Amino acid sequence: MEKKLIVDVCLSPQLYPAYEREDTIVVVIDVLRATSAMCTAFEYGVEKMIPVATLEEAMEYKKQGFLVGAERNGIAIEGCDFGNSPYSYMTDAIKGKTIVISTTNGTQAIEAARNAYKVVIGAFTNISALTHWLQQQNKNVLLLCSGWKNRMNLEDSVFAGALAERLLKTNLFQTGDAALASLFLYQQTQISQVKFFHSSSHSKRLAAMGLKKDIKYCFSLDKTTIIPVLEGKYLVKMA
Amino acid sequence: MEKKLIVDVCLSPQLYPAYEREDTIVVVIDVLRATSAMCTAFEYGVEKMIPVATLEEAMEYKKQGFLVGAERNGIAIEGCDFGNSPYSYMTDAIKGKTIVISTTNGTQAIEAARNAYKVVIGAFTNISALTHWLQQQNKNVLLLCSGWKNRMNLEDSVFAGALAERLLKTNLFQTGDAALASLFLYQQTQISQVKFFHSSSHSKRLAAMGLKKDIKYCFSLDKTTIIPVLEGKYLVKMA
Repeated sequence: MEKKLIVDVCLSPQLYPAYEREDTIVVVIDVLRATSAMCTAFEYGVEKMIPVATLEEAMEYKKQGFLVGAERNGIAIEGCDFGNSPYSYMTDAIKGKTIVISTTNGTQAIEAARNAYKVVIGAFTNISALTHWLQQQNKNVLLLCSGWKNRMNLEDSVFAGALAERLLKTNLFQTGDAALASLFLYQQTQISQVKFFHSSSHSKRLAAMGLKKDIKYCFSLDKTTIIPVLEGKYLVKMA
Repeated sequence: MEKKLIVDVCLSPQLYPAYEREDTIVVVIDVLRATSAMCTAFEYGVEKMIPVATLEEAMEYKKQGFLVGAERNGIAIEGCDFGNSPYSYMTDAIKGKTIVISTTNGTQAIEAARNAYKVVIGAFTNISALTHWLQQQNKNVLLLCSGWKNRMNLEDSVFAGALAERLLKTNLFQTGDAALASLFLYQQTQISQVKFFHSSSHSKRLAAMGLKKDIKYCFSLDKTTIIPVLEGKYLVKMA
């Protein structure tokens, strides 16, 4: 059987226009920590999230009485209800609620991909459910790494490689160069995993802030089977 | 000794603004085949090259009587004197001449980096001379991959990893995430080199055009000790 579907990786939201193609499911990735936190929030019963790119929009929602999660450069914004730590969403208080979320990189990536066939949220914490679902869609897949201020980062591209490896096992997909590069990068992490994540500049940044617990959680597999999906302005739990 | 210098990798010319910093030597990389061909041209005695981003500029020079090398999508432009194959520059006819050159990706990368402290040309064919020179400059180094139409490609990032590995042996540099990713990617190629280069989408494209000889040449180490450097609008042989 000819492999007609393409899985590729876009290593920075800024490169999205160069990777955009029709009939593509975009997986937005921000392992440390936006997309990991989103998966946690849905696992803990949040009903909807509204990702917004700017703090101004987030604060506008705050004035209207919404719960708001916002951070910049790893630090929660004062006056907000949540930061970017998955642990801050592990509470029954969010059950059935709508939370507005704005982060340094993750929500910008969602914004870039807004017009794709479908936008879903990926993290190590939902990787198996996500793999299974993507394998059944018969669509191209683009793994969109949020990176760090338009630069590529290690943890998002390694996750993209982990997901690409799983997707390629089905033999449905051909790959672009960036997917291959991410795959080989991921395979190298399997050889020397510790060295790898300690090397990531954002891991270092978070560890310096005392957030090692967050890092460990964000690299844990399958904490949830939920796949958050973008519907209009809302992220919701996929049915 | 504290490592104060930074070596990083920019995987697409479009991301250059996110990586730009002061006091940085930019190494422009287009392994298949622009920067490999430039190194060959200088080895065969060309005096100057004028890299231009658009075909229109190239054709303007052609009208003025210059020798012109130009290609798009791997195919030499009709009416030009050279294409992008290193073999086309292996002739005494270029000795002492000035050649205008425009390629799909490589000359765009040179254009993006034009205001850097210094812009030099890198390829497997001059990797040792380049490594040695960079180690002695006491400057930040940015390895700028030309990629393919703003996407990242495998061969440029693998070369960036090979050069990063050599530079890091001196212990002078700290790295950004993209340099680490390229390094790990390169190390993975050392484990499975054949598989790797056959996977590259541009290798496939060139092989389909009957250019396997070019691919083999472009992955050969140290065919020259010349480092082309940008001086104003000219690439010249570094003194």
